[in-house]
Amino acid sequence: MKSIKENHPLDIATQLIRKEDHYLGHTSDHYANMVGPFGGITAATMLNAVLQHTEHIGDPVSLTINYAAPVSDGSFEIKATPARTNRATQHWFIELFQDDEIVITGTAVFAKRRETWSSTELKFPAVPNPEEAYPISSKGLPSWVRQYDIKIIQGLPSAFSHHVQTEVPSSTTLQWIHDEPKRNIDFLSLTAICDAFFPRIYVRRKQIVPIGTISLTIYFHVDSKQLQTYGDEVVLGHATANQFHNGFFDQTAEIWSPKGDLLATSSQFVYYKE
Amino acid sequence: MKSIKENHPLDIATQLIRKEDHYLGHTSDHYANMVGPFGGITAATMLNAVLQHTEHIGDPVSLTINYAAPVSDGSFEIKATPARTNRATQHWFIELFQDDEIVITGTAVFAKRRETWSSTELKFPAVPNPEEAYPISSKGLPSWVRQYDIKIIQGLPSAFSHHVQTEVPSSTTLQWIHDEPKRNIDFLSLTAICDAFFPRIYVRRKQIVPIGTISLTIYFHVDSKQLQTYGDEVVLGHATANQFHNGFFDQTAEIWSPKGDLLATSSQFVYYKE
Repeated sequence: MKSIKENHPLDIATQLIRKEDHYLGHTSDHYANMVGPFGGITAATMLNAVLQHTEHIGDPVSLTINYAAPVSDGSFEIKATPARTNRATQHWFIELFQDDEIVITGTAVFAKRRETWSSTELKFPAVPNPEEAYPISSKGLPSWVRQYDIKIIQGLPSAFSHHVQTEVPSSTTLQWIHDEPKRNIDFLSLTAICDAFFPRIYVRRKQIVPIGTISLTIYFHVDSKQLQTYGDEVVLGHATANQFHNGFFDQTAEIWSPKGDLLATSSQFVYYKE
Repeated sequence: MKSIKENHPLDIATQLIRKEDHYLGHTSDHYANMVGPFGGITAATMLNAVLQHTEHIGDPVSLTINYAAPVSDGSFEIKATPARTNRATQHWFIELFQDDEIVITGTAVFAKRRETWSSTELKFPAVPNPEEAYPISSKGLPSWVRQYDIKIIQGLPSAFSHHVQTEVPSSTTLQWIHDEPKRNIDFLSLTAICDAFFPRIYVRRKQIVPIGTISLTIYFHVDSKQLQTYGDEVVLGHATANQFHNGFFDQTAEIWSPKGDLLATSSQFVYYKE
């Protein structure tokens, strides 16, 4: 079973080799986007540098990744630096370099968690079961889309749809998603899934305009022990934009287990043209 | 008029003096919290290090501040480093040191913005006018609260209220807020206002437990030119938590102009005990 996991495209794409004080990695054709790699796989690879680091304590609770420039296809270096280690929390700087230039910056907070009073305020969305929803076609879409089984219940991108002819009023998307082939969920795959939504502006508008995420933040609401209990189950993603204004729009997203556990909440700010 | 602005407590608290490759600052009694300074003023001061930096271009669009340890009362050093400068965007690392140890880490993205197709999807909340709402009493609360005129329309902290006897089902707060004394809004005051909500867990529960923000992210939806048009008007803040789970809860927040312009969206992840 272990060898199967190790050979999963996601594990190959996020694989890092330690070299002195940094890591070496390589982009993967499987997760290619329109320009460079899918941002979710880059975020997962940045997180992996901390997870692989011998000094890390606890589990990730917060991750911010800033996309300073497009990642070029090929090899890259990642440096993860523990900025401060407390008794139960740890703060990291993460940098990705290509040709000695910074391409991606990031910070992560790790923590040892324990049981406390807990409460989920957000309501699990009313959705049909995954078996009743239809998978999207990845035809003509970047290759990262083929690494997922995505069933969009609401908010299919207008820009990719022949049925939608004009602008639609809502950018909200609800989708069932799992890795394809299936893979047990962990912090790497959950990180990538937080970004595995089509751009909100393509949901709203017919027009395809140049876009790029400039900053992505993920809060992990569960620890590794709880995450392991979900196995390779499908998860539900909900994403929406609050505002598109003069070149930037936001996206907030939540990822749920099918039983209604809130696994992660996320936000990102995205550049767009026109 | 300029001297009045310069003497505002917020300007004194966020003031930085350039010394070689870094800045010197000092905590302000006006913005003291239960332990150390109010997180919003620390975030504003971190942002100010970039705004003061001669190499910065454009306006802030994204800011993430990680609270690695409590800031001690007294002096501190901030180092702002441009990680990458593109034609229209710029990425920064920001670090705050006390006694040569990192206390706060952060990243910021700046950008030159221009007019594009725009749309606000989120609806402006149904609220009474500020004149019809009552200011909260700052009696017994940390001194930063006195630097604001806060009128809570919904979601008064249960933990501070004699009227609320048990846990309440919603953590949502709606509040009118402005600096006290009044001050023209800018990116510094807007940053602080994004964090000027009482902790969501104190809204939900009667019990006061130890809490601390570990990471705060703000997306600025307007540029400095648009921000200037609001003068010293009151703004509306909306904040809610999606989930409290095993030691961490999230908060998402939006800041609106009274006319219904969405100025900033924000999220934070907060540690809590018990």
